[in-house]
Amino acid sequence: MWLRVGCDLLFEIEVPTPFILMLRPRSGTEQWVARDEFKIKPSVPVVEFTDDYGNLCQRLTAQPGYFSINTTADVRTSQYVDTAFGAPFIDIQHLPQGLLNYLLPSRYCESDRFNDLAMEITMNQFPGYDQVAAIENWLRNNISYIPGSSDYPISAIEVNYKQSGVCRDLAHLGIALCRSLSIPARMVVGYLHNLQPMDMHAWFEAYVGGRWYTFDATQYGPKGGYVAIGYGHDAADVAVFNQFGPSVYPIRQLVSVELIEESI
Amino acid sequence: MWLRVGCDLLFEIEVPTPFILMLRPRSGTEQWVARDEFKIKPSVPVVEFTDDYGNLCQRLTAQPGYFSINTTADVRTSQYVDTAFGAPFIDIQHLPQGLLNYLLPSRYCESDRFNDLAMEITMNQFPGYDQVAAIENWLRNNISYIPGSSDYPISAIEVNYKQSGVCRDLAHLGIALCRSLSIPARMVVGYLHNLQPMDMHAWFEAYVGGRWYTFDATQYGPKGGYVAIGYGHDAADVAVFNQFGPSVYPIRQLVSVELIEESI
Amino acid sequence: MWLRVGCDLLFEIEVPTPFILMLRPRSGTEQWVARDEFKIKPSVPVVEFTDDYGNLCQRLTAQPGYFSINTTADVRTSQYVDTAFGAPFIDIQHLPQGLLNYLLPSRYCESDRFNDLAMEITMNQFPGYDQVAAIENWLRNNISYIPGSSDYPISAIEVNYKQSGVCRDLAHLGIALCRSLSIPARMVVGYLHNLQPMDMHAWFEAYVGGRWYTFDATQYGPKGGYVAIGYGHDAADVAVFNQFGPSVYPIRQLVSVELIEESI
Amino acid sequence: MWLRVGCDLLFEIEVPTPFILMLRPRSGTEQWVARDEFKIKPSVPVVEFTDDYGNLCQRLTAQPGYFSINTTADVRTSQYVDTAFGAPFIDIQHLPQGLLNYLLPSRYCESDRFNDLAMEITMNQFPGYDQVAAIENWLRNNISYIPGSSDYPISAIEVNYKQSGVCRDLAHLGIALCRSLSIPARMVVGYLHNLQPMDMHAWFEAYVGGRWYTFDATQYGPKGGYVAIGYGHDAADVAVFNQFGPSVYPIRQLVSVELIEESI
Repeated sequence: MWLRVGCDLLFEIEVPTPFILMLRPRSGTEQWVARDEFKIKPSVPVVEFTDDYGNLCQRLTAQPGYFSINTTADVRTSQYVDTAFGAPFIDIQHLPQGLLNYLLPSRYCESDRFNDLAMEITMNQFPGYDQVAAIENWLRNNISYIPGSSDYPISAIEVNYKQSGVCRDLAHLGIALCRSLSIPARMVVGYLHNLQPMDMHAWFEAYVGGRWYTFDATQYGPKGGYVAIGYGHDAADVAVFNQFGPSVYPIRQLVSVELIEESI
Repeated sequence: MWLRVGCDLLFEIEVPTPFILMLRPRSGTEQWVARDEFKIKPSVPVVEFTDDYGNLCQRLTAQPGYFSINTTADVRTSQYVDTAFGAPFIDIQHLPQGLLNYLLPSRYCESDRFNDLAMEITMNQFPGYDQVAAIENWLRNNISYIPGSSDYPISAIEVNYKQSGVCRDLAHLGIALCRSLSIPARMVVGYLHNLQPMDMHAWFEAYVGGRWYTFDATQYGPKGGYVAIGYGHDAADVAVFNQFGPSVYPIRQLVSVELIEESI
Repeated sequence: MWLRVGCDLLFEIEVPTPFILMLRPRSGTEQWVARDEFKIKPSVPVVEFTDDYGNLCQRLTAQPGYFSINTTADVRTSQYVDTAFGAPFIDIQHLPQGLLNYLLPSRYCESDRFNDLAMEITMNQFPGYDQVAAIENWLRNNISYIPGSSDYPISAIEVNYKQSGVCRDLAHLGIALCRSLSIPARMVVGYLHNLQPMDMHAWFEAYVGGRWYTFDATQYGPKGGYVAIGYGHDAADVAVFNQFGPSVYPIRQLVSVELIEESI
Repeated sequence: MWLRVGCDLLFEIEVPTPFILMLRPRSGTEQWVARDEFKIKPSVPVVEFTDDYGNLCQRLTAQPGYFSINTTADVRTSQYVDTAFGAPFIDIQHLPQGLLNYLLPSRYCESDRFNDLAMEITMNQFPGYDQVAAIENWLRNNISYIPGSSDYPISAIEVNYKQSGVCRDLAHLGIALCRSLSIPARMVVGYLHNLQPMDMHAWFEAYVGGRWYTFDATQYGPKGGYVAIGYGHDAADVAVFNQFGPSVYPIRQLVSVELIEESI
């Protein structure tokens, strides 16, 4: 399916403010970006770079006054996410070297503290995809998904304590549980078709059976329509914008995902 | 200045043919890509990746029949290239580690064979930018630039023997001469505003005074309007398309560069 | 000064156990490894790789029975660490791109929660080295350094709450405080000459004035004798050994650092 | 088998001379370095780094006077190299992305000029390992291996014209032939047990059936005892030493490979 995704951000800046943006989806194995626009007003020098995870990032310094960022992209993505019950756990010694760091605990995914819970949730499951599916299902049934209920990221321990959270929070807990079973897991932020209410979204991927699979405890069924804009260990790595100096919040943040026939 | 650049390629494919494309300009220190379109007809699965030089590449297999690739981009670039007479040669021991490989000979730049010529051309020049400017000037005066005169890349030795060549050939000889003086040099392919006749273009960059500078012996003055789409050691690394199996040549190849007010 | 450093680990393994080791110091800007031995008994296949931080790691699967790792190295390192009062804070927009990730919070360094404390500690300090020196000094005066008091890593928040910790804990809090001021900071594990009691050690580095500087709140004065074996965001990245499956603890762990004349 | 390998180089330096060395074998999939010594006399500051191919390199500036480098290592390597007749050619679209550059022509391997010869040599061979084995065999029968017959690298075209060469030359022609068939191929330099006469050695690897295999047209049978110290596109990337400024040749170069019981 072809989606036209977009994000419109408006800031009111008081002092020159360095920004790092992550708002440009990249073509990869799972999605193809056929058209892409990235407007910054007023115009300032921008340097684009690829971070350690392969994400396209932009570095710039916004000047005092209004500052807006407007991105749109036409992206081909799958209508259904792949599922693979029975896909096996990959032994540590056979994991590609570049994935080993996705086994480690990170800021918002304290996987070193979730071993017992993960064992309990996945008891009797065949090691691999089925374990992650059990974790996803457990999240769906035990952690209330309340969009808009949180302003800043909290960690898996806090999510588990609160028993509720936004999409990002459910993903953090899912990732922490996977890693505690030695299954590589990573955070994804991006767009999701038909998300209610429409906003930036977050989900997670787990590496089983020799590839990454998508999991999202906030949705039902193998529904697709995902457009990734950033991958990382957790929310610390995939902020749509990182801003330095006195805090600045967007006074407008509009996200849109529209089904189109094909890229124009 | 804002340029709208574009490339339109049409192939007639007989057997399934793997391609690697390099046609998508990236935002960097010197240029900002505000809009970008990449159309492939008929649609096939595409995987995009970043190569060792940071270029965005696309891998796909074209199926028998007509196959077209159509790319356009709106890019902000400088009206004049920077010049820096007096910018010094950087001692080997102070070169950033990632640049050391740009001192080595490569397929089309046999820098190991050009030491005497380079010494002669740059005699009495202050080491650094002035040496490269002397090389660029020597190329302009000694190697006839004949657009369209060559179908496949030839190496610096052959260019020096023929005393004429296309843009790529002059760049190869310039790079070989720089490297033989221990000045890192690399190939760039891309677009150039007002190029006559309009086509893909090639030029080179040399690293002196702590940064890369643009050199182009086919042009006069510090005229800008360059849009890079690929960087590499030489033409072997920056083919606009690499195709595997029985040879296929584009039956249409249209390149366009248009001055626009600003990205739409 | 030349140091002979060594680590001797003995495990009793019950089931085949995958290990990732980080015990091989690398030559770098600050240290030169002239001799290096790495013995594993009994012999098993080992694959060595370089992780995302440039650390040399070894991957292997230990078989049931005794399993020992014995490493030694002769390393030249500085007798005094460099200090640089007045070295300035580097603006975000001028930081090398590869360092931006050292501004982010990580598993054990929740820098997003330390802004107020960091501001208070560094009040009136010139931005840069002096801020980090103030943080180091504050740690020395406020967090009791109690070697051997902790078995597993705790995070900066927990350290600040306990007001005491091992070397690793003080480093975590120091890193979190630096990052909350937008100063890149990273964890180092390795050896330290004359450490009392002798053991593996941990300290931190901060990037100010255009390079990394060493800080260690557990020591006094610009005393050197450091040999790094691993760099990372925090303790999660630089475990001397990561082991997967049922927990295994070393039944012997001997660390030695000896002053030698020169490498034999 | 365990080998003790070593290289002893002595230079007489006239002016301060920057060097880049590649003399330190790394542990990898095929070899394990259990002991390693690297002595430089007189002592100068050395910075070690990993190049784009994963080789450990050392950068230093030698001062006027005698300058010696003495390295030894104890390495476990296979007694026989793996062979795999029938291992299939990997289609371009399924090659790991990091290997695509091993399909490109390079300084000494002008694969773009060897298509006809490669087709002729490998006619009727099953695509993959058998093609490379046919190339190796053709080299053995058609290019005379004359150790010590060449002082500086020549390219595959020149080797094919001369019909004789040193180990490096045969490897260059083998690599060019493989790449012209779209088989990734790379150069290896290192040590070989029982090489006659003893010296640094060079051979090549080809990627078929999902992994790299060793080929060496200067030897007979699947004899092992190889210790790699550098990988690259061709000899340009894997010089044991690169030296800049006025040419300096070693006044002593001793290479040794000794069978030992086990690393001490």
